[in-house]
Amino acid sequence: VKRIAIEEHFTTDTYLEFLKTHGAPAHGTPGSAPGARSVSAEGRIASLARMSKIIGLSKERLGEMDSAGIDMQVLSLTLPGPEIFSPAEGTEISIKMNDEIFSLMNGHPGRFASFAAIAPQDPSGSARELERAVTKLGFKGAVVNSNIQGEYMDLEKYWPIFEKAQSLNVPIYIHPKEPSMIKAYEAYPALTRAMWGFAADAGLHAMRLICGGVFDQYPRLKIILGHLGESLPFWLWRLDKQWRHEKMMPGAKQINKEPSQYIKENFFITTSGMFWPLALEFVLKAVGPDRVMFAVDYPYESSQVAVEVIDSLAIAQVDKEKIYHLNSEKVLRL
Amino acid sequence: VKRIAIEEHFTTDTYLEFLKTHGAPAHGTPGSAPGARSVSAEGRIASLARMSKIIGLSKERLGEMDSAGIDMQVLSLTLPGPEIFSPAEGTEISIKMNDEIFSLMNGHPGRFASFAAIAPQDPSGSARELERAVTKLGFKGAVVNSNIQGEYMDLEKYWPIFEKAQSLNVPIYIHPKEPSMIKAYEAYPALTRAMWGFAADAGLHAMRLICGGVFDQYPRLKIILGHLGESLPFWLWRLDKQWRHEKMMPGAKQINKEPSQYIKENFFITTSGMFWPLALEFVLKAVGPDRVMFAVDYPYESSQVAVEVIDSLAIAQVDKEKIYHLNSEKVLRL
Repeated sequence: VKRIAIEEHFTTDTYLEFLKTHGAPAHGTPGSAPGARSVSAEGRIASLARMSKIIGLSKERLGEMDSAGIDMQVLSLTLPGPEIFSPAEGTEISIKMNDEIFSLMNGHPGRFASFAAIAPQDPSGSARELERAVTKLGFKGAVVNSNIQGEYMDLEKYWPIFEKAQSLNVPIYIHPKEPSMIKAYEAYPALTRAMWGFAADAGLHAMRLICGGVFDQYPRLKIILGHLGESLPFWLWRLDKQWRHEKMMPGAKQINKEPSQYIKENFFITTSGMFWPLALEFVLKAVGPDRVMFAVDYPYESSQVAVEVIDSLAIAQVDKEKIYHLNSEKVLRL
Repeated sequence: VKRIAIEEHFTTDTYLEFLKTHGAPAHGTPGSAPGARSVSAEGRIASLARMSKIIGLSKERLGEMDSAGIDMQVLSLTLPGPEIFSPAEGTEISIKMNDEIFSLMNGHPGRFASFAAIAPQDPSGSARELERAVTKLGFKGAVVNSNIQGEYMDLEKYWPIFEKAQSLNVPIYIHPKEPSMIKAYEAYPALTRAMWGFAADAGLHAMRLICGGVFDQYPRLKIILGHLGESLPFWLWRLDKQWRHEKMMPGAKQINKEPSQYIKENFFITTSGMFWPLALEFVLKAVGPDRVMFAVDYPYESSQVAVEVIDSLAIAQVDKEKIYHLNSEKVLRL
């Protein structure tokens, strides 16, 4: 079976150097001065620099793909992304990174594709760069790292990016990051990250897009969520139940459908970092096998474990093919 | 089959009057002056006053229990609870409400039990009132409405309440409320409430208790979460996976077990407001049938629907008995 993994991260020495010289604010921390540097950002640069697996398209990466039986990785720039810089610098480094990974991918035909890096704080620049990356470089969509300096893309100023994604027929992958509202998490740094807070922020972002009417304005927009949907599938029934109550409240913003309809029509969900058969089978039943796509979250998760667990699922072979490649081939037009 | 529902709410005219005269801050909104009143609090008082089903132990309540086949409700004071007042006033109204519901329950032998109202912002007063309610009034534990004026009970100042609960062998029910960090939710009031934000706050509270070492200090402490566990069961595998990484980080607070062990040993989970067979069956498999207890969330949810859905589950009869009454009889010592 062909396997395409679609939340696979990279960075490059160019990007780490840009992070060092342009400052790396504690992303997600509201109130920090623009460009302010923090111990955690310094630590992040250092830990990325030590993680040789994530730098470029290394032998280690290709070796892990080969031994796990992964035919293709769809790449995205790892955290912190261009969303932390000024608008102009964010778009400048996005263009540079998209060009760099494009040229690296050319050395390995058929093994890689990529989501574009964009800087949503520069909406028109992001829309332009998304168009360039898709039409000139053959990229498959864009990745946005959840909150943009504390904001979410339900704010209309960000909609030119959705407008462009819909017209190009490419998805936006909303990747998690530290919550914009960090205060109640930060007593335990573990809770600010992938153990808990990442999903809290990405899940909230998705809910704001739904409640903000983004999918009424852009009914063909496709959003991808990792980690089996950042808990949205768990709440699918309750979201509708509560929405029927909430939409009657004075001042409630009205939307055209029930929340679960948007989740089933506009969202795709990946397996990144959730290699638990019980949850995988639950989510497959909740949203259906046409909306779940394989992802590992390289290099933070093991490609081997991911494949072993998906291989072991007690589901129809056709559904396994959908998860491993058919759905992503269709949605990303691979 | 005997049915005991354990997240069933009430208020009384006495309480609504106290809310009016002692001010009802916009609970969950940090930075609001103590005692400050808000439009939403006024609205809440008015909507509770109109909701006759929730006032006292009405004929309507008993009628709904009878027609749904619910033998017993375990009661708790609805939002906003005593956690919004000053420490002294919070404990004062807790005592008054516990006495009042005790006397109302006496009119209906065998049909009701109750969790104590407490005001955690007065930790020693809360511990004393919990002891009085359990030993003198026969109450079955206490309910805490998630964040306490923006704080969570992993802070050691609240631990006298856990100390007392463990020594009395009674559970604490952590009931959701509006998130302490409201900013990124409040553009859509729906997201601040039961549709999304409630679970975000209660789930975070539970995770802080785990990460804060509360269950290492009080290994026999029992915490009850509603709404099928406020998403913790969905994340069970990932919590452990990420914790193995996080516990190696410099400065990480160490705990004795993996997160899922605490969830499976110290937590009980109710069905309140989650009447979706797919999610119910997932959670039963994730945490096991000994840790799931029936609850409706009266009067905000329909007792009839709750019973129909649990009745319809394709599970062993013994597991249905556990959910409906055996587990709660054991944990609440009914």
